[in-house]
Formats: sequence, structure tokens, C-alpha cells
Amino acid sequence: VRDVMTKAAKHEQNAHVSDADITRGLAKYVVGSRFEDIPAEVRHEGVRSLINFMGCSVAGSRHETVEAALAALRDLGLSGEAVVLGRSERLDAMNAALINGISSAVLDFDATQFKRTNIHPSGPVLPPLLAFMTSRSVPGGEFLHAYILAVEVACRLANGIFGEQNPGWHVTGATGGIGAAAGVGRLLGLNEDKMTAAFGIAATQAGGLREMYGTMCKSFTPGRTAQNGYLAALLAARGFDSAEQAIEGDKGLAMVMTGRPAERDILQGLGEHFEIMHNIYKPFACAIVLHAAIDGALRLCNLHGFTAEQVDRVHLLVSPPTLTLAGKRDPRTGLESKFSVYHGVALALLHGDADPRRFEDAYVLDPALAALRARVTAKTDAGLAKDQAEVSIKLADGRELKTRVEHAVGSLVNPMSDADLDEKFRGLCDGVLPTQKIERLLELCRDCERLPDASVIAQAAAA
Amino acid sequence: VRDVMTKAAKHEQNAHVSDADITRGLAKYVVGSRFEDIPAEVRHEGVRSLINFMGCSVAGSRHETVEAALAALRDLGLSGEAVVLGRSERLDAMNAALINGISSAVLDFDATQFKRTNIHPSGPVLPPLLAFMTSRSVPGGEFLHAYILAVEVACRLANGIFGEQNPGWHVTGATGGIGAAAGVGRLLGLNEDKMTAAFGIAATQAGGLREMYGTMCKSFTPGRTAQNGYLAALLAARGFDSAEQAIEGDKGLAMVMTGRPAERDILQGLGEHFEIMHNIYKPFACAIVLHAAIDGALRLCNLHGFTAEQVDRVHLLVSPPTLTLAGKRDPRTGLESKFSVYHGVALALLHGDADPRRFEDAYVLDPALAALRARVTAKTDAGLAKDQAEVSIKLADGRELKTRVEHAVGSLVNPMSDADLDEKFRGLCDGVLPTQKIERLLELCRDCERLPDASVIAQAAAA
Repeated sequence: VRDVMTKAAKHEQNAHVSDADITRGLAKYVVGSRFEDIPAEVRHEGVRSLINFMGCSVAGSRHETVEAALAALRDLGLSGEAVVLGRSERLDAMNAALINGISSAVLDFDATQFKRTNIHPSGPVLPPLLAFMTSRSVPGGEFLHAYILAVEVACRLANGIFGEQNPGWHVTGATGGIGAAAGVGRLLGLNEDKMTAAFGIAATQAGGLREMYGTMCKSFTPGRTAQNGYLAALLAARGFDSAEQAIEGDKGLAMVMTGRPAERDILQGLGEHFEIMHNIYKPFACAIVLHAAIDGALRLCNLHGFTAEQVDRVHLLVSPPTLTLAGKRDPRTGLESKFSVYHGVALALLHGDADPRRFEDAYVLDPALAALRARVTAKTDAGLAKDQAEVSIKLADGRELKTRVEHAVGSLVNPMSDADLDEKFRGLCDGVLPTQKIERLLELCRDCERLPDASVIAQAAAA
Repeated sequence: VRDVMTKAAKHEQNAHVSDADITRGLAKYVVGSRFEDIPAEVRHEGVRSLINFMGCSVAGSRHETVEAALAALRDLGLSGEAVVLGRSERLDAMNAALINGISSAVLDFDATQFKRTNIHPSGPVLPPLLAFMTSRSVPGGEFLHAYILAVEVACRLANGIFGEQNPGWHVTGATGGIGAAAGVGRLLGLNEDKMTAAFGIAATQAGGLREMYGTMCKSFTPGRTAQNGYLAALLAARGFDSAEQAIEGDKGLAMVMTGRPAERDILQGLGEHFEIMHNIYKPFACAIVLHAAIDGALRLCNLHGFTAEQVDRVHLLVSPPTLTLAGKRDPRTGLESKFSVYHGVALALLHGDADPRRFEDAYVLDPALAALRARVTAKTDAGLAKDQAEVSIKLADGRELKTRVEHAVGSLVNPMSDADLDEKFRGLCDGVLPTQKIERLLELCRDCERLPDASVIAQAAAA
């Protein structure tokens, strides 16, 4: 695949970074990047992602998944000063990163990269950055910069290593830790050698299985991955070493996880275009690949004013990944239902929305919903993109309704506006934080870049 | 590959455990196993493994790799009551497991399974068991039983998932965490459902890249894996759930890591034959696949009484895995030199042994050693097993010496005796613990089964 002799030779004189030196090439970029070179719209997207993350984490913080994880940590007798978002407990920084990573993802409402993969980069990278700042004063601009760089690394690797051929890795876990190491490593001021080592230490901890989708382990992965990257940066700072070609080596991350080398474009255009611009924010609290079908069902409902009782049957044409990732025919739990396009469409028809509370166990068990879900069928059409779907509904009175969604609400072409995101944030925080705290947190996130000490953000998100 | 409908049907009625339900089948065995059914020779092998682990950990505890990891943990401000083997520091139980896992492996001197894979099961499984007992009184028999079961799970999965076709996973990291979850889960008294969940939580954290061999990350993997399994058991105890078919599912550990289903024999003969009986203990402080070549070189040296200066050239015939895993032509660090069959043979010829101190940086850089190493060549012979080698030495005076090693010293057929292991243990602890403590620790390990409270073992290994 690649010339071993050339690789060995390069190894000797690694002062020169070539296209093939992915690990070092990314490290070099992260170390050398200057905040003033990050365009305003990229910074703005960073702020939007931060707001979305905060809302999801605050709302997710009361989920039974988080309660179970906190109970386990209590058994270890741990304590500390780091904020657990949306809660009153404090933990040591490393374990706060675990819980906050879980909270951010447990509603399946966090930002998604809409590219070759659907990585959720914020879950692994923001919790360690927030936890790291607990005992330190980090200017908001540096924090935002580290966040943008962390997302850059996690997403470039996800798209470059996995593309659309993935044997079953939860991509967020596979590359998110290297992003987290980049972010914390940047705040730690690691040099190029140490940043390269940090990436390697994170790479050898990479994991996460798609078999876990629909269980508590799905959101556990970003939490654990956050810790992996955080620990990697701390270890590298203290001289812990790693393999020079952790990602691109013959037994490195790409080859071992996928059986093929990473794409050569991982290092292309670094600092010119930014991965965070491909982050999208979900209006519906379920897998992104369900959005187009739900959007179509809601449109038909709103346009024609029928009720769920009038629906005879529903047929969906969806993109292939929709059924691969979210084809659960009969979900048994709320978490599983987030990966059932049948359930999502039935919810939308019966309740007129797909809010977080609709994906709780009670809805899965509702007989009316189950009956409607059973009348939904789906086929894939390779011509449809992930944000596209065709929804056909046959009503009991014989009417046949049909719509084609070209770009689902919340997709790159049809994104949520700043105001939409603010409303999503408020809705998520409502009932967890008092109104005044919600507005203050939103303001701090919006002003992030100008904060003299960004640790106030996490502080403001404590219950 | 497997019938999806059958699997789904099984899923529904998972009261029945079939051969295909690897995750639940292993969990069921671990939960139901009785110590009185573990044969005396298996318990004895458990004790031998414990002694070998303790010696390696105490000696490894002063390695720069461990110092770097401890420095990083210090940056997190952590503290606790759990023993760091061979040292005076104490840590919380979870992080003690990290450090002890690293220490146990950093000299590459720990027990190895000599079967389809060379997993080192003790590194991931013993540290969490020892740490877990910190604040609890666990009878020695229960501890030894949990250890034997943990090794059983880790090794059966390693051999059944990877066999000899491994794209580059560090097997100890890939399945060791599930073993650790089994061990801690057993001490926690998890029921079958929770044990199954614990295995799933561990499976989704599995990782470890062979690219790391020869760097600090090699020994980091067992340490981190120890934590993964420990955390998995604690989470499961608190109701954290996971996928029912975490190992055998279509997107479960086996398929995702290797692209093929696990061997069906994983569940065969559970409770009848024991994996720990395939543990071997190394006389040389380097990768097991170097042992036959070193053994042969030492034999020729002892038999013919020549010195290294008289050696013109050395040619080795070795098993294919020897060069795949340990074919580093020019190691640059002590850790790398443990994976260089050229270096190992040169060391043996120059110094007459292959003790831990020989694999430190100073020896790698020694010009006399480098010159001798350069005169060693190696070829693989598919007819040779991992514990076999042919060593040919041409002396400057023209003599040609040759030997064939049928079973290297320390292999299953030619194992270290109890007395050999005691001596190895004493040599490893020498200089780290005072003599009296060394003898007391050895005695506690030997008496393990009869101890009313096994937490004294770790206590005795603190400096």
C-alpha cells in the first residue's frame, strides 16, 4: 500500500512533514495555528456549537444514564471541584469530563457533522476543555480556538479514516479522543513532539462499537472518549511517548480499524476551510438520518390537516444509511427509539413534533404509537442523500399524499438559525436551570470570545 | 455469515443461551462458577501467575514510563487509599489500577498466554482486583477465583476473536478489559444480566494498537484496559446497560475488530479446561517470540565457551510471528529493543543473559552491542513454532556452530519451576523492597487461597 522503505527513511528525518505523516502533520497545525487566522464565521459557528452542546448537556444531565454513571463514580468515593453541567455535584476534572460527555450525547440531540461521517465532535472535545479550565484562568478566545482546533482534528480524521466504509465503529469514539487531545494539548501549550505523542496516546485508546446504539453505552462513548483524549494530553505533557505514526502506520489507527490507509486529503487545506462549518444542529431529538423522513411527515400533516387516526399506511423512501443506522423495526426502549425511522415518523404524525421527551420509554410502549409504527414501511434509494426522503401517506379515506424533502430542516442547506438555536437551548434548559441562569449562560456562550476567563461558562451551567 | 433472523429471534427470548450467545454465555459461566470446582493445579497456576505479576509490577514501578504517568495524575490532584505497587504513593482505586497495570507490563516480563495469541492477561485483570479490595475484606479464595475467571474470559476471547489473523490489535487491550470486568463483577456479585452488561461496557472501550510496541503506550494499554474493565463492572452494578450481543453482534467486538465472527469454540469446555494453564513465565525481559533465539544463542555460548568478540556473524531461523512482532532492525530505545530479535541475541552473546536491565536505553546505544547486532540476520520458517528457533553462529576462526531450540526455556513444555519463579520474583523486587518485605509478599501470594482478607497482598507490596 505504501512504500515501507520510504516510511522508514522519513521516520529517521521527521523534521520534514509530508502528506503521509498524518499524526505529525495535524499536530504541527494545531501547535502553529493562530486565533487571528480563524475567520469570523468559523468562530461564530464555534459559538453556535457551544450553545447547542450546553443545552443538550444541561437537559441530558438528569437522564437515568447519567444517574447510573454518577452512582458508579460515587462508589469510587471521588470528589473534586469541576462542574457537572446541569447538576449540583462536583467531581474531579477527569470524571466531570466523563459525565458531561455522557450528558451531552444522551438525548441524541447534539451537533453532528454532515459529511462523509456523522461524527458528533463536541461530546468528546468540549468536556475536557471545560474541566481543564476548572482551576485555571483561560481567556475565552483561547478556549474557543482550542475547541475549533479539536473539532478540526476529530472530524478530519473521522472523514479521512472512515468515509462511508465503516465496519461498525462509533466514529465519535474512534477519532474524538484525538480531537480532545488536540484541544487540551493546545491549552497546555504542548510543542509539536508532545502534541504528536498526545495524538498517539489517544489513538491507542480509540474504540466504540455501533452495536451499542440504542443502549446507555452509546452516550458513554463520547464521555469515555473525552477522558481518553484528556488523559493523553496530560500524559504527553509529562513526557509520555507514543508511536510516531500512530494514525498512518501499518499497525496504526487507520489500517487496524478499517484495513485500508487513511485518505491523503486529511492534511489538505488545513487553516483554509474548517470542519466546524459542517456541524449541523438537530431540531429532532434522534439520529440525524431520521430527520428528512420526520420533516416530510410533519409537512404533510401541517399541509393537509389530517390526524394520526386517519392514516392507513405510510411508506418512506430514504437514504441507505438511514436504514443501516436507524432501521430498528421494534424499539424496546427510549434510547432504541432514537434509531427507529418507523418510530420517529409515527411520533411526528401522532404528536406533531419529535422533541426529547417523545423519545422516552413511555412513548415506545404506547399501544397507539406502536400500532401506527407498524403501518410504516421503508425502502432505501441510493439516489437519496442523508438529508433527503420521500414520504407517502395513504389515508383511510383513500387520499394519497406525497412529499419529497430535498434538504431536511436542520441540514447544512436548511440550517437552524441563531434564534432557532437560542430557542432550542432555552427549551432544553427549562426545568433544569432557573430562567435567569439560562439567560446568563446563553450570554456567556455568545460572548465566549471576549471573556477574560472562560471557566465561568461551566460555572454558570451548574445547577 | 450468521442468520440475522435467528439472531433476532434469539434476542427476544434470551433466557436460552446458545453457543452463539458469547457475551451472555461467558457471563453466565462467570456468575455460576464455584471455587470448589476449580482444580488444585489451576489454583496453583493462579498463584504462580500472581507471584510473577507482583515481581514484574514491583520492579516496573520505578520505570520512567510509570514516573511520567504518575506525574500526569498528580496534575489532576488525585489522591486516595489504594496501593501503588512498589511505591509509597497512594491513589484512588481507579488510578492505582492504571499505574499498576503499566508497572506490570513495562518490563515486558509478565506472563504470556502461549496459544493462538500471546495475550498478557494479568496486566489488565489483577490491578482492578487488587484496587477493588482496598476498602473491602475479600477472602483470598474469592480473590483467587475471580482472578482465574477473569483470565479465563480475557484469554478465551483473545484466542476466539483473533486467532492468528490480527490486523494489528494489541490483544491484551482488545479483550483484557472484558476479563477485568468479569473479575471485578464477580467480586461485586453481579447477576447474569449485569455481568452481561459489564462485558458490553468493557467491549465498547476495547482498543490498543500494535503500532505502539516499543513505546510507553505498549504498557499503557494494560493499565488503561484495567481501568476500562473496572469501570464497566462498577457501571453495570449501578444499572448501566449495554448491547446484549456486544461481542458476537453484527457490529459487535469480533466483527468490527476483525471483519469475521468469533470462533464458536469460545464457550466450549468452560469449567473443564482452564486458560490460565497456558500462561507461561518469561526468563528473559522481552517479547516472548524472542525467547527461542536467545535461548539458542546462550546454549551455544555456554557449550562452546566463545566470547562475543569471536563472533563473525549470526543467522537465525525463527517463527513468522517473531519477525512480525519483534523484527525491529535498529531499536532506538530500551522499550523498542524488547521487540528486536537482533538486539536480544546480541545481548545474550555479549552479556550472557537477557535480564530487565539489559533492555535499558544505555544498552541500545552501546557501540559494541550495535556492531554485534548488525552482524545478526534472521529469516522466518513457517515450520517453526513460536517457541522454536535455529541459531547458527560463525566464529572468526571459521568454526560454524548451530543449534535448534525445540522448546525455549520458559515455554509450556519447558516451563520455569516454582523455585525459578521465586528466584525471578526475588530478583525483580531486590532493590525496590527490603528483603523482609520481599519474603513476606512471596509468602502471602503462596498462601493467597487461605488468607481471610486478600487486601493484605497489595498492602505488602507498597514501598
